[in-house]
Amino acid sequence: MKFATLPDGTPDGRLHLISRDLRRAEPAQGVQTLQALLEDWDALAPGLQAQSDALNADPKRGAAFDPLAADAPLPRAWQWLDGSAYEAHATLMAKVFNIAGMSSERPLMYQGMSHRFLAPGADVPLPSEEDGIDFEGEFGVICDAVPMGTDAAAARGHIRLVVQINDRSLRTVAPIEMRTGFGWIQAKPACSMAPVAVTPDELGEAWRDARVDLPLAVDWNGRRFGTAEGYPMLFGFDQLIAHAARTRDLVAGTIIGSGTVSNEDFRTVGSSCIAERRGIEMLDDGVARTPYMAFGDRVRMECRLRDGSPLFGAIDQRVVQRR
Amino acid sequence: MKFATLPDGTPDGRLHLISRDLRRAEPAQGVQTLQALLEDWDALAPGLQAQSDALNADPKRGAAFDPLAADAPLPRAWQWLDGSAYEAHATLMAKVFNIAGMSSERPLMYQGMSHRFLAPGADVPLPSEEDGIDFEGEFGVICDAVPMGTDAAAARGHIRLVVQINDRSLRTVAPIEMRTGFGWIQAKPACSMAPVAVTPDELGEAWRDARVDLPLAVDWNGRRFGTAEGYPMLFGFDQLIAHAARTRDLVAGTIIGSGTVSNEDFRTVGSSCIAERRGIEMLDDGVARTPYMAFGDRVRMECRLRDGSPLFGAIDQRVVQRR
Repeated sequence: MKFATLPDGTPDGRLHLISRDLRRAEPAQGVQTLQALLEDWDALAPGLQAQSDALNADPKRGAAFDPLAADAPLPRAWQWLDGSAYEAHATLMAKVFNIAGMSSERPLMYQGMSHRFLAPGADVPLPSEEDGIDFEGEFGVICDAVPMGTDAAAARGHIRLVVQINDRSLRTVAPIEMRTGFGWIQAKPACSMAPVAVTPDELGEAWRDARVDLPLAVDWNGRRFGTAEGYPMLFGFDQLIAHAARTRDLVAGTIIGSGTVSNEDFRTVGSSCIAERRGIEMLDDGVARTPYMAFGDRVRMECRLRDGSPLFGAIDQRVVQRR
Repeated sequence: MKFATLPDGTPDGRLHLISRDLRRAEPAQGVQTLQALLEDWDALAPGLQAQSDALNADPKRGAAFDPLAADAPLPRAWQWLDGSAYEAHATLMAKVFNIAGMSSERPLMYQGMSHRFLAPGADVPLPSEEDGIDFEGEFGVICDAVPMGTDAAAARGHIRLVVQINDRSLRTVAPIEMRTGFGWIQAKPACSMAPVAVTPDELGEAWRDARVDLPLAVDWNGRRFGTAEGYPMLFGFDQLIAHAARTRDLVAGTIIGSGTVSNEDFRTVGSSCIAERRGIEMLDDGVARTPYMAFGDRVRMECRLRDGSPLFGAIDQRVVQRR
């Protein structure tokens, strides 16, 4: 199943089923919002699956779907826990910024702002270019309720949806906040989400070991910036969920992020965030030449199936000066 | 006004007005939940103020209020940002654990789990005593919607309620998570809240410089552990809000915490968390003798007005082994 949320004047919007080709939408039957669906997945999913099958079978069903008019699939969530599971990214950042690298013992994870995920086409208001505005292309999963103590094997059954996220970072502020050990507040403003959340089966064989085995294409101002592969996470989403649930219940609708998608051959595939390219420049030439984003800059991120068919739709948005 | 939320089978419970002496409760008129009130404070507050005045004027109004049967005033929140604003605590922890101390430039703050605040009398299930279970007595404020870029002066007007919180910490895990720079996930399970949230005017002169100028009494298994004063925050709640709002809008119902209440004369007034007492023991004797909490241990926290009259009610709860 593929889901999108269309704005209807309420904070949670109106849940829609989306055709596999992302061309058509119709209101989900029997449930108003994605949050409500996640709170009662087992009871509601069979009816929605039947509706989804009918939508895909009959090209006359549904209304035209405009992905960039959609809101985030989950416009607000009770909890957003973002991992940093790509070792290539962590190792590079550790080398460049002289910070701790990744441990194979415990995933890296922080709790971020969840009360608003920006729409995939919405302008992103921020206070200052001096903060070092960066994008971070990543994947995420959305869970139903996960009890405290759930292990990684059991966690897989709680992964209901896969999403694509731009987890923005303010790079000038980030190291100052990291040094406190408290994690990020100012350095992590609202994230954005691609328009369509999909059940893992929509990925086919590309949903593998609780990872997204697909490339994420990132374009900055119309130029290709990276196409890193999603698979090489040191910890799968199942392990990230188990880590998060060790001392807390995870509420239905908890979103778990992969961290910036990154591969060891970053010189070939490029990067999913500017900081990584700057890190490579510092390693190669001793100086970072690529600037962070300027107001008016646009970033586009899209992950498709390997046959080119659409999956999550695209994030495509500008950063702008907050008024 | 004083507010409590009584369980009614819904996640947000039923908002009640509470008499000043915390003896009587009646359902809030015109609004069902505290979250709904915070989303429309200016429109709803005048009617509730009239109802509150009538409740306080007529001792026959309302039903008996049992504080320990109440839920947290805000049983779930979209955002919980906890500061660490007491310099005495930060300086001691920095000395003992060889971590960075407090800067007078920027408040310390992390984003914590907000999808469940435990009821003041509820048992607290946790997985293991080996995690170093600690309590942390603190104050908090609940805001209405705060736009990005709000400064400290304007932030004061967004402080709608004052609350009392037990922000539990798992001390064995905490330093491991701090070293990553990502902040705490496993080390910060669900917090608890005292039963009654009050408007700042209920504190009278004890609401001073956006701080709670009152002592917080903490008892561990029936023995007094600390009575530290709430006033000596290096940053007031107004400054904490402005810090949090620099790069994000704060959603209505955002809770901002003070961090563990702590005073420079901790040898006289005691502490609001075990880690601080252990730190003092390490400084004095080179070894921490006080253990962390065992399952079955009880902690009680209450802040009253200086004339002894009740304010937030008490947190009084046991930690228990998760089943």
